[in-house]
Amino acid sequence: MSQMVTLGAPRAAASPMPGTRDVGRLLVQCDDRPGVVAAVSTFLAEHGANIIELGQYSTDPEGGRFFQRTVFHLDGLSAQQERLEAEFADVAARFGLDWSLTRADEPKRVGIMVSRYDHCLLDLLWRVGRGELAMNPVLVVSNHADLADEVRAFGVPFIHIPVTKDTKAEAEARQLEVLRGNVDLVVMARYMQILSNTFLESVGCPVINIHHSFLPAFMGANPYVQAKSRGVKLIGATAHYATADLDEGPIIEQDVTRVSHAQTSAELQRRGADVERSVLARAVTWHCEDRVFRHGNATVVL
Amino acid sequence: MSQMVTLGAPRAAASPMPGTRDVGRLLVQCDDRPGVVAAVSTFLAEHGANIIELGQYSTDPEGGRFFQRTVFHLDGLSAQQERLEAEFADVAARFGLDWSLTRADEPKRVGIMVSRYDHCLLDLLWRVGRGELAMNPVLVVSNHADLADEVRAFGVPFIHIPVTKDTKAEAEARQLEVLRGNVDLVVMARYMQILSNTFLESVGCPVINIHHSFLPAFMGANPYVQAKSRGVKLIGATAHYATADLDEGPIIEQDVTRVSHAQTSAELQRRGADVERSVLARAVTWHCEDRVFRHGNATVVL
Amino acid sequence: MSQMVTLGAPRAAASPMPGTRDVGRLLVQCDDRPGVVAAVSTFLAEHGANIIELGQYSTDPEGGRFFQRTVFHLDGLSAQQERLEAEFADVAARFGLDWSLTRADEPKRVGIMVSRYDHCLLDLLWRVGRGELAMNPVLVVSNHADLADEVRAFGVPFIHIPVTKDTKAEAEARQLEVLRGNVDLVVMARYMQILSNTFLESVGCPVINIHHSFLPAFMGANPYVQAKSRGVKLIGATAHYATADLDEGPIIEQDVTRVSHAQTSAELQRRGADVERSVLARAVTWHCEDRVFRHGNATVVL
Amino acid sequence: MSQMVTLGAPRAAASPMPGTRDVGRLLVQCDDRPGVVAAVSTFLAEHGANIIELGQYSTDPEGGRFFQRTVFHLDGLSAQQERLEAEFADVAARFGLDWSLTRADEPKRVGIMVSRYDHCLLDLLWRVGRGELAMNPVLVVSNHADLADEVRAFGVPFIHIPVTKDTKAEAEARQLEVLRGNVDLVVMARYMQILSNTFLESVGCPVINIHHSFLPAFMGANPYVQAKSRGVKLIGATAHYATADLDEGPIIEQDVTRVSHAQTSAELQRRGADVERSVLARAVTWHCEDRVFRHGNATVVL
Repeated sequence: MSQMVTLGAPRAAASPMPGTRDVGRLLVQCDDRPGVVAAVSTFLAEHGANIIELGQYSTDPEGGRFFQRTVFHLDGLSAQQERLEAEFADVAARFGLDWSLTRADEPKRVGIMVSRYDHCLLDLLWRVGRGELAMNPVLVVSNHADLADEVRAFGVPFIHIPVTKDTKAEAEARQLEVLRGNVDLVVMARYMQILSNTFLESVGCPVINIHHSFLPAFMGANPYVQAKSRGVKLIGATAHYATADLDEGPIIEQDVTRVSHAQTSAELQRRGADVERSVLARAVTWHCEDRVFRHGNATVVL
Repeated sequence: MSQMVTLGAPRAAASPMPGTRDVGRLLVQCDDRPGVVAAVSTFLAEHGANIIELGQYSTDPEGGRFFQRTVFHLDGLSAQQERLEAEFADVAARFGLDWSLTRADEPKRVGIMVSRYDHCLLDLLWRVGRGELAMNPVLVVSNHADLADEVRAFGVPFIHIPVTKDTKAEAEARQLEVLRGNVDLVVMARYMQILSNTFLESVGCPVINIHHSFLPAFMGANPYVQAKSRGVKLIGATAHYATADLDEGPIIEQDVTRVSHAQTSAELQRRGADVERSVLARAVTWHCEDRVFRHGNATVVL
Repeated sequence: MSQMVTLGAPRAAASPMPGTRDVGRLLVQCDDRPGVVAAVSTFLAEHGANIIELGQYSTDPEGGRFFQRTVFHLDGLSAQQERLEAEFADVAARFGLDWSLTRADEPKRVGIMVSRYDHCLLDLLWRVGRGELAMNPVLVVSNHADLADEVRAFGVPFIHIPVTKDTKAEAEARQLEVLRGNVDLVVMARYMQILSNTFLESVGCPVINIHHSFLPAFMGANPYVQAKSRGVKLIGATAHYATADLDEGPIIEQDVTRVSHAQTSAELQRRGADVERSVLARAVTWHCEDRVFRHGNATVVL
Repeated sequence: MSQMVTLGAPRAAASPMPGTRDVGRLLVQCDDRPGVVAAVSTFLAEHGANIIELGQYSTDPEGGRFFQRTVFHLDGLSAQQERLEAEFADVAARFGLDWSLTRADEPKRVGIMVSRYDHCLLDLLWRVGRGELAMNPVLVVSNHADLADEVRAFGVPFIHIPVTKDTKAEAEARQLEVLRGNVDLVVMARYMQILSNTFLESVGCPVINIHHSFLPAFMGANPYVQAKSRGVKLIGATAHYATADLDEGPIIEQDVTRVSHAQTSAELQRRGADVERSVLARAVTWHCEDRVFRHGNATVVL
């Protein structure tokens, strides 16, 4: 019972989740070659760290791309992080590693964009409140005012930036003003506007979108209407990184639920909402735990 | 977009859901014998009703029990209901039917009992707010005060009735005072107290409970701890009617989710919460749509 | 244990499955109007039949299309079938019904077309052998000779009709010779050739195909390679009626299974094979039980 | 298409599966302490091996038990295996490791025990034939003669050892004669006799059983009848290592499928058979890939 968190309390100042102190994540990728796992784990062992989780994957042991996520515990990590990074740079240079070191007690700062559907947004905020999603929801941006009260009840700022066809460029400029530098991730939680290429290039952090179909089926608008007319027996949702090609970015997570001829497209939409919120929650959780590596137009989730 | 309902508005006075006007449900059961389907459907046709959904099931065509749920549309149903019932009584007498006639535009009045876990409670209220669960949540009763603000934000009264070992009888008496006559259904949305037989017999309506395991596995307390120690690969939840035998009542709905050795029992609990809330929501929805018939210690869901 | 059927025994002469004697299925569809359910059930009651299963669905109670499948028990059905049909013709005329009456003890005669992948074919034959799929597999046609021994071990004739680009028309003519009039259903159990429009129009019975993707995603060739390159997290299979537009016919059943970045496209293919065989088995079972109604480019499964 | 394997050809002499040459698996477990991952991976790197898969898990970084499975590629592994083992013994001594080194091109020799239900047995043999399950089915032992022809058609010896209440001890002695020393694993593929403690202790290798329920629900006999009477909405199957306590051994894999009130217990049994065969196939596959570590009464599957 002690795990209960009262919803309504401010989240922005949330203290770190239990079990995250002194826990680091070392993320590396490189062209695959022998000895990388040994080099990384020896480096950590020599610095007194204990590995508590290690995931790795190679697209091809010969000439492929190698990805590794190593979670470790090291007493006094925050004080030592800078020195650790400086010393790991040598290992990285030797193996040609792209790498980063993150701390589990520093949750990602997340900006959420939403229109009028509340189910994905509320599910994320509720999971944060329960202490099961380690992210810091610093602000919500919406092109509609409808959800202001509900968002603010979670102690999260709500910023209303209307968008019309004529004002889209200005609206995106204002969105960038409030997001850029303030967030490590943008989540489109059923934000019903297409973000321009300029926005995606300028925002300076990854953008995750939830699409209400099992991509690549039913790309574009009104997927539930499309699904109904095609008579499918399963409907789904897809969380992916937003890219310039709409609905074509790297897929992080997908799921489906069973339907039949007896559901109208409005009912498909309601049932789909349950899938959307759980798929988006898993994708955001994995991203915030540094599990997702982009590889071409696909992802590796470790 | 027009389907959006602003959460926070009072639900108790909610107008009927779209599509429910003039829609009735005729529920019958009897010892199986030829001609029941014909008698019921002919009765409806002769009264100008159009059948829009018909579900039936017989446990055994010879000597079994027969169940039928017929949903129909009849112009001016509310004005004609009394006459319809009087005339159907003749059909019922002829075939020895147990029966009832309900109207889709009269949602069940539901009392929710809860302790401190909010996930099942909020999910129900949120689905009501979205217009996808046709029930009228008239009040929430809790043995803890924690969730008062969140419940009242939905426009639903919250009544705090503390329970201790010594005051359990009095507490149940107070619970009965506020529930009896006011509700058509009680939902135990993770209410962590055992209801006495006296309570169940006195409350005058069905009681649905959500148990946090795949019954009959892991009956009793701490099912997630039990599941972890047994090394199971799936955890589940079960919604059932509460009966004198704890965890033994007729099962309405169950579901599971996949886990592995890598999850702690605390993580099993968090993942299980997602299953609990969706299983309970489905069970309550089906009950409120008059789909669930009790048959011995099992159910028939039409 | 008495349910065991020795594989290897001839199936073609299989006696009816238990529980099918004197069981009929009355299938009707029409433009929706009040009174159809009453008329059909009254007709059956007046003829002494007991309804044991009734499924119905209307695409729209106002101006929609209505479908009903009624399973009934009638002593001496086979002797009475002709009279029953003659008398039901009057009811049908009154309501403008399209209808048919089938007997559960007359399994559909099925011709299976296959190339070299054996998993769908063997699963169907194995289910017939176990007594869980009520169909009569009268012959297997293949463009390769590989599977002859395995098919004949089930007591089912295997006919090898090679197909090359130049001989396709002749080959289809030979296929039609052996199928037309001999079968009530053709199942393409991973038959890797496209059937011509001429074939589909001439064969005189429905044709069910299994497509190795979750349609409409990944239409066309090599869906597992497409799925791998797109980084999807679920792969699927779709059973549908074959129509002139390849991969576009009415969907009967679909399912998916979870995959990750770690599977190669060859592994996706192996995992997909499990989904394909179970999806096809369900679709064929439902068709053989007269559960599937075609409606435009979708299906209603009752 | 080149992946097709003609069923019916002898399996016992099967050549190694593609991609297994020069691939080794180093399995270690110990009380958790820093440096194990580094020591193992450095050892492999120094011997010229390239890690292609690494899974590890600790029950608790402080005072828990640590498990690691490392799959590597090393040119000329078979010639070097002995030297590698001798040298790794030093590392193992330093860290107190329990360990073993296996080669992917040496499939486990498997003895299958079966009674009269064929579905689990045939599914295993069929997967071996397709080249998707890397095991060597050296013999099948049955207390009934029914399945002799089907087993021998796969090129696998079938040994009929009848068992009666009076001859059970002698029968087990004969079973041990044919199994002991000849197999690395025994699979009870719906073998309907209880194996004595003596047998389990004498057979000299692990024994995997498939139980036809979602354990721990419905332990004991007739689980589908139990499930029907309890009105459950899901039925399942459990693959576990057989131990002296029947139905209580460490669980390897479980799955479920949805059912309703409308299925008889005979239908539950048929639907359950599909779950049983896929659950058993996954458990046997994982065991044969050296993925399953026993830990108390649970398993760690890496």
